[in-house]
Amino acid sequence: MRWWGWGDPSHPPALPAHALRFLRETVGIAGRPCPPVALERVRLAPPSLGDGELSGLREILGGQGVRTDHSERVVHAAGKGYPDLVRLRAGEPKGAPDAVVYPAAHAQLRAVLDLCTRASLAVVPFGGGTSVVGGLAPLRGAHKGVLALDMRRMGGLLGLDRESLTLTVQAGVRAPAVERYLAPRGLTLGHFPQSFEYVSLGGCAATRSAGQASSGYGGIERMVLGLRFAAPAGDIDLPAVPATAAGPGLRQLLVGSEGALGVISELALRVRAAPRRRVYEGVFFESFTAGVQALRSLAQRREAPHVARLSDAPETQMSLALAGPGGLKGRLGRRYLDARGYRENACLAILGFEGTEEEVAGRRERALALVRRCGGLPVGRSPGEAWRKARFSGPYLRDELLTHGVMVETLETATQWSNLGRVHREVGAAIAGALSAAGTPGLVACHVSHLYETGASLYFSFLARRREDDDIGQWCAVKEAATRAIVRSGATITHHHAVGRDHARWLGEEITDTGVAALRAVKAELDPAGIMNPGKLLP
Amino acid sequence: MRWWGWGDPSHPPALPAHALRFLRETVGIAGRPCPPVALERVRLAPPSLGDGELSGLREILGGQGVRTDHSERVVHAAGKGYPDLVRLRAGEPKGAPDAVVYPAAHAQLRAVLDLCTRASLAVVPFGGGTSVVGGLAPLRGAHKGVLALDMRRMGGLLGLDRESLTLTVQAGVRAPAVERYLAPRGLTLGHFPQSFEYVSLGGCAATRSAGQASSGYGGIERMVLGLRFAAPAGDIDLPAVPATAAGPGLRQLLVGSEGALGVISELALRVRAAPRRRVYEGVFFESFTAGVQALRSLAQRREAPHVARLSDAPETQMSLALAGPGGLKGRLGRRYLDARGYRENACLAILGFEGTEEEVAGRRERALALVRRCGGLPVGRSPGEAWRKARFSGPYLRDELLTHGVMVETLETATQWSNLGRVHREVGAAIAGALSAAGTPGLVACHVSHLYETGASLYFSFLARRREDDDIGQWCAVKEAATRAIVRSGATITHHHAVGRDHARWLGEEITDTGVAALRAVKAELDPAGIMNPGKLLP
Repeated sequence: MRWWGWGDPSHPPALPAHALRFLRETVGIAGRPCPPVALERVRLAPPSLGDGELSGLREILGGQGVRTDHSERVVHAAGKGYPDLVRLRAGEPKGAPDAVVYPAAHAQLRAVLDLCTRASLAVVPFGGGTSVVGGLAPLRGAHKGVLALDMRRMGGLLGLDRESLTLTVQAGVRAPAVERYLAPRGLTLGHFPQSFEYVSLGGCAATRSAGQASSGYGGIERMVLGLRFAAPAGDIDLPAVPATAAGPGLRQLLVGSEGALGVISELALRVRAAPRRRVYEGVFFESFTAGVQALRSLAQRREAPHVARLSDAPETQMSLALAGPGGLKGRLGRRYLDARGYRENACLAILGFEGTEEEVAGRRERALALVRRCGGLPVGRSPGEAWRKARFSGPYLRDELLTHGVMVETLETATQWSNLGRVHREVGAAIAGALSAAGTPGLVACHVSHLYETGASLYFSFLARRREDDDIGQWCAVKEAATRAIVRSGATITHHHAVGRDHARWLGEEITDTGVAALRAVKAELDPAGIMNPGKLLP
Repeated sequence: MRWWGWGDPSHPPALPAHALRFLRETVGIAGRPCPPVALERVRLAPPSLGDGELSGLREILGGQGVRTDHSERVVHAAGKGYPDLVRLRAGEPKGAPDAVVYPAAHAQLRAVLDLCTRASLAVVPFGGGTSVVGGLAPLRGAHKGVLALDMRRMGGLLGLDRESLTLTVQAGVRAPAVERYLAPRGLTLGHFPQSFEYVSLGGCAATRSAGQASSGYGGIERMVLGLRFAAPAGDIDLPAVPATAAGPGLRQLLVGSEGALGVISELALRVRAAPRRRVYEGVFFESFTAGVQALRSLAQRREAPHVARLSDAPETQMSLALAGPGGLKGRLGRRYLDARGYRENACLAILGFEGTEEEVAGRRERALALVRRCGGLPVGRSPGEAWRKARFSGPYLRDELLTHGVMVETLETATQWSNLGRVHREVGAAIAGALSAAGTPGLVACHVSHLYETGASLYFSFLARRREDDDIGQWCAVKEAATRAIVRSGATITHHHAVGRDHARWLGEEITDTGVAALRAVKAELDPAGIMNPGKLLP
């Protein structure tokens, strides 16, 4: 992964000329591209770890398991949030771990936590490194140093129980490795977040991640049956059982613990038969309201497609503009839509059906009938396939936009269906207002995804001219305004990005102070020295 | 509800002569019926509450909200587990609350907890009073007295959000009241435990209850979207959202808290369209293994019927024997089954399909095709309707059996599909062995129910001659042997009866000592004086 941005370093730039033109005309772009600095120009404070601590770590992990070189420290200095990238590209990350450690087995992980407790070293668990909420910030709190604990060497597949459709893995395993293992066996986990290519499953569980197909497969919290958890105070082993009434739901307490209570070491996960058939297609609705109604009906009949995303009108228009004449716009034709009465309020939905031939046929037929009753216009597979092809490529685009001086960020929430319109309106207005107030009016787009019987997620994207004089301040103002609007409207501060550093001060608004106190008590018990991921999760 | 047993006091005895004969021949019955003592003969220690405390409580709740009379104290002296009933019927419950309090609103509940914290009074939250694991035992721990906190006056329906299929209720509301409210609106909660007629929804949530139709509607933990929770340290309000990644899953921590962390005061629950069609029918399998395979396939295709229960051969034979010549046995004819090759290993399954006409037709067709491929023989609706008619009547039968000197008890667990055969075998053998060792060889029966993709629940029933000289000792020996076998085989100590007093000492075996320590830390934070339901949940 690129240290200064997303993904495969050999990935070519892909922002076409017409898209750049569109951005120049709407939000404005920089006069000249502003690429990241060279790796060796990234400035880090010298590591503050003593020789005793380093040799203690090396004794546990071997020489290869402890790294203090510049490049490893830079790679582990931040996640992939907007402030992270802005700072990294400028060569000025906000701190870096003093060392990066790589346990290869549970016993090593256990020993590292014991050493760090004794030596007062903070520990930042590091899975795929894709946090967009500051979950990987190398904060040391009141401790003498801070380590990044990279789980990549704990990437083993420990056992598949075919009869119970249960896969046990070490928590550092990457999502693609799991799918590569399962595919020839006719199985899938079904967890495909946009960060799929890099995420570790332990990281997904620790952040309550939801994949793009969560309407079909459920979020990660539905997939975790059992887990092994290493906290400074000791291990918690929860066996893989389909359900239990043995007291408070401890599994769900550790799912979402964000490295602040300990480290997920192993996971037992529910897997499913891999779909033999996939049909992804596009549907236009006359309005956002009509589209929402269709998705709601599908979810409430428990007939939601595995993937269901409805872009609002601005997102639809932006997609058409960025796709350009060779893309969706050209193929469908604005005039075609106009002629059918789908004008500037038209909203594009992607519906992705997965399953056996028979299941897909049945569900598609019923879903499209319902969509038509809601005034939807199916426009065939090309928008669906285009989306599917690009489903993991959003973060690459972000890097290019940053190079061109465009601020691009996303944030997400979830709420009940009856509140969806209000949240869409108010959060969108808050983002737009904050961008304007910063002197950089922008584009604000949104889509509905992750359907539930009782509600859905809203995922906002926004683009504006990056204020190079104060890009972090600009971002903070928007984040503040958006989160305030989310909290005010009774939606959740995050549906699938987690709390991290960025949402921590809002947690009390959502779960009340007594709820926060309960979590603090768990932390004090499991991590009495407070070494685990300081400054994250808890305000 | 009868103070000494189950249900409507006017319910007539229903144990037919042939059933009594069957029991006499198999396990033995008492020479003469042994009815419960009269209410006024139940011996209680005098209440130990001082006048100051009583008047403080009356100030909060009014005179009608505080009761210290003999009959109310008896009614709240125990739940409905076997030891509870044995002791109540003998007029010797193990203690009783000093007073019963009835808050009518959240503010009163809050004030009661504050008073009890100050005055060192233990609080036993009391919903429907149906715990079978000692969850209502009036234990005072180290406190000066103990109150039963009966939630029946907090039974309001606070609001239905039709668009979001979300119903908000006060936690004391009874399940039938919710269904009565929802039915004319075309909706259902779908939570039908055997105790349906009496349970409160707060009690269901506090004990992670699963209804008989949980394969279709999910357990209560799937239905809870938001809740209001009154702990001695303060209130926790978690908004109704369809899903959230805002840190550890606090909702699921409070679901299953068993009154030991505080009291669930309000619930926001997911509801569904009520089924327009219900088809319940019987299927015979040649063996338990064949039946399990069919249920597993249905669950893993996500085509499980709403109700799916597979009796093992002993349960099937017992059902046929108890139903008698006019019942299932007569209608189906042993010879008919014999002729089709279904002999002493034959196992009866009940499949209950619910939904729209179309859904039921489609799912039934697919399910029965699969059942036939597994060697199943559909035998029509009469067994299904018979089961449905009697679905809530098991506890009445238990009372009659007790009167005739027959010990009858149930216990349940859940495990992965690959482990189901082992758990069925080993737990069944442990129960049978313990009964024989007590000199009272018995009948042990079991059914699979509550299907999941990865596993299912196993529900054991057993009957034996009650040892009147040491009925509690007899019960303890069986419970110990069964739970030991459950723990040894890696299954959960409880799938839907909760931990209560009876399973508390086993909790550490399931969630490890560090897991228990984490729960203790939450308790210490939320209930610093330790007044909430002492002696339950935590070992």
